[in-house]
Amino acid sequence: MNIEVINTGTELLLGNTLNSHLVFFARELFPLGLRIARQVTVPDGPPIREALTESFARADIVLVTGGLGPTTDDITREITAELLGLELEHHPEVMEAILARFARRGIPAGERVRRQAQVPKGAVVLPNANGTAPGLYLRATPRNPHLFLLPGPPRELKPMFTDSVIPLLRQIAPAAANLCCRTYRMVGIGESTVEELVGEQLLAIGGMELGYCARPGEVEVRCIGTAGMLEQADAIIQAHLSAQLVSTDERPLEQVIVEHLIKRGQRLAVAESCTGGFIAHRITNVPGASGAFDAGLVTYANRAKSSLLGVDPGLIARHGAVSAEVASAMAEGALRNADVDYAISATGIAGPGGATPEKPVGTLFIAVAATNKPTAVEQHRFSTDRETFKVYASQAALDLLRRNLD
Amino acid sequence: MNIEVINTGTELLLGNTLNSHLVFFARELFPLGLRIARQVTVPDGPPIREALTESFARADIVLVTGGLGPTTDDITREITAELLGLELEHHPEVMEAILARFARRGIPAGERVRRQAQVPKGAVVLPNANGTAPGLYLRATPRNPHLFLLPGPPRELKPMFTDSVIPLLRQIAPAAANLCCRTYRMVGIGESTVEELVGEQLLAIGGMELGYCARPGEVEVRCIGTAGMLEQADAIIQAHLSAQLVSTDERPLEQVIVEHLIKRGQRLAVAESCTGGFIAHRITNVPGASGAFDAGLVTYANRAKSSLLGVDPGLIARHGAVSAEVASAMAEGALRNADVDYAISATGIAGPGGATPEKPVGTLFIAVAATNKPTAVEQHRFSTDRETFKVYASQAALDLLRRNLD
Repeated sequence: MNIEVINTGTELLLGNTLNSHLVFFARELFPLGLRIARQVTVPDGPPIREALTESFARADIVLVTGGLGPTTDDITREITAELLGLELEHHPEVMEAILARFARRGIPAGERVRRQAQVPKGAVVLPNANGTAPGLYLRATPRNPHLFLLPGPPRELKPMFTDSVIPLLRQIAPAAANLCCRTYRMVGIGESTVEELVGEQLLAIGGMELGYCARPGEVEVRCIGTAGMLEQADAIIQAHLSAQLVSTDERPLEQVIVEHLIKRGQRLAVAESCTGGFIAHRITNVPGASGAFDAGLVTYANRAKSSLLGVDPGLIARHGAVSAEVASAMAEGALRNADVDYAISATGIAGPGGATPEKPVGTLFIAVAATNKPTAVEQHRFSTDRETFKVYASQAALDLLRRNLD
Repeated sequence: MNIEVINTGTELLLGNTLNSHLVFFARELFPLGLRIARQVTVPDGPPIREALTESFARADIVLVTGGLGPTTDDITREITAELLGLELEHHPEVMEAILARFARRGIPAGERVRRQAQVPKGAVVLPNANGTAPGLYLRATPRNPHLFLLPGPPRELKPMFTDSVIPLLRQIAPAAANLCCRTYRMVGIGESTVEELVGEQLLAIGGMELGYCARPGEVEVRCIGTAGMLEQADAIIQAHLSAQLVSTDERPLEQVIVEHLIKRGQRLAVAESCTGGFIAHRITNVPGASGAFDAGLVTYANRAKSSLLGVDPGLIARHGAVSAEVASAMAEGALRNADVDYAISATGIAGPGGATPEKPVGTLFIAVAATNKPTAVEQHRFSTDRETFKVYASQAALDLLRRNLD
């Protein structure tokens, strides 16, 4: 099956938006044994015509994103219908869903939204749980490729792809379905070290496909193969990387922690300086986090560290706000003030300002305080941009907690 | 000038690597008045032939990344020479640079590296400060496009592009520099409403390019044209959308707020429940945020709302934690406890759990307390997934603050 992806969106070609669709598609298609042969980005408007014409001539499956919105540069639907010689029909159920969505949000639906209820004759409507424009699946004749028109915004695209497109693709390309995929998520270790430890042994499993993916503070190893191949891979990875292994089912670190705490009936608080709320944000992204998370104290100013966490101003004056001593005092203050079982803290220099000769940009101290054991402190250094620093720092702090859980 | 980008690399199509080249190119080309018309990703190996053929027929400038390495699937150099009818010549200086690099790193240079010293006749060699494969610039005849062959790894590509490609492009396209781009960022309004208010008038500006981009709680309108066109566009947008307009220079809402507060010497605290630290995270993403941001209190549990923000437990019992009364009390508590000029709060039901018949998933109350005016409260409803709810909620809360700033 020859799959091509067409991303429409002027913002992608102007550098305003990073194209994350291709990675998402590739990862969703991989376990089905499907690979993308080609991807093209075109601006909003007429250039979609040439891209569709080219892909129609080459591909078995074409995935198009974007251009389904209500504005005049959203013409994917119209050009597709024209190229395939299909009429556009008003789809009353789609219109109803759109109007209901506007009504729920208390926003008047303008005349323009009607365009989104236009459906090429014979197309299957893919419901959009998070937006107005439905997705569309159509195949004009058996000589045409399977065509999916999907919305551009990731929050609309992703659930639609998982819920509606994947089941259709399983019917379109059923042969690949006996393959399994397992994703090993590891923290506190680099990609090249992972490859050195297990790479050759995993490659020696004949027929298994192997993929590495490194993100800030995290490495994923994906294995695709038969159940027997995955069993061999599992033995190798567990033997060498069990200490770093967070999950084998794509659960992120914060979810593993929250679920562990809920199971034990334990509660958590967070005291953040340099991460600025990002650790609390990650924890509260986990559905049901309120079952384990009490409070986060983002004490950015030094006076907030003292007034909200009871950190001695003399300690800050002696050691500096970015120090092992203050990291410990922050975690212990949160443990005390929030009345929880665990508290984690992070203080550091995210940059670009704030560095000193002894404490360069990227310096980080993290601590975990617990009711039943001594406070654990670690020092790290992550020289990178401000936002990536927050990701690394939150990852290190959450991992220190993971390693200190009962 | 019609610019096309060809990215080669199987890892891009397998989802192992996010394609960051396109954003990099677009941002580098923008100040030169150059925009990318089309981008395509093909796997390593033969598919580069078709991609090059297509781009040669359409483009004035073609930027190719990847496929210059020493392995057998790196054939960009060879296919290019073949398509353009150019001979490949051994380039002794390139060979010397490659061997010197290997010697410096104490690694033996295998036979394969010789391939990287093959240069199509007439090509300009672009030195690679961070790798072995040099870049190449060539134009076989005046009827051919300007072709740049560049290495795939970002640490090799980026300095080469800045140091060698940009100066060449300045010579190739000196005239294009009179186009400007302005991005209008608006909050608290939908994409279709924006287009209804200003769309037709903007389209009537002959020759100006127009693009809309909607993100949760935010719409961008991009205008590309001459200074005169942008002046007309500005008058139209300011006349209809000044209340919703956050910035005209791509600054996000949180940055506009932080910079405003710093300028006035005012300080801010945040009290969050449903947004779980995300508002503090956004504020602290702004470099220099410590100049205006004191503290964030993520009071997820009700007892934290009372102990950290002084919210009366009776108030919570009477009205519920998700209520206008508690939102106000949270903001006022943060204003008091953090000793700042402004405090914003958010309490709501992010879902999937926690809903009641009167307060469905997506219910949100936000408040802004200030030292010099009455507390402002708003109710919203955003039915979406948990993480997107946080984005909408933070956007609404920050916008309420923006509208209440002095």
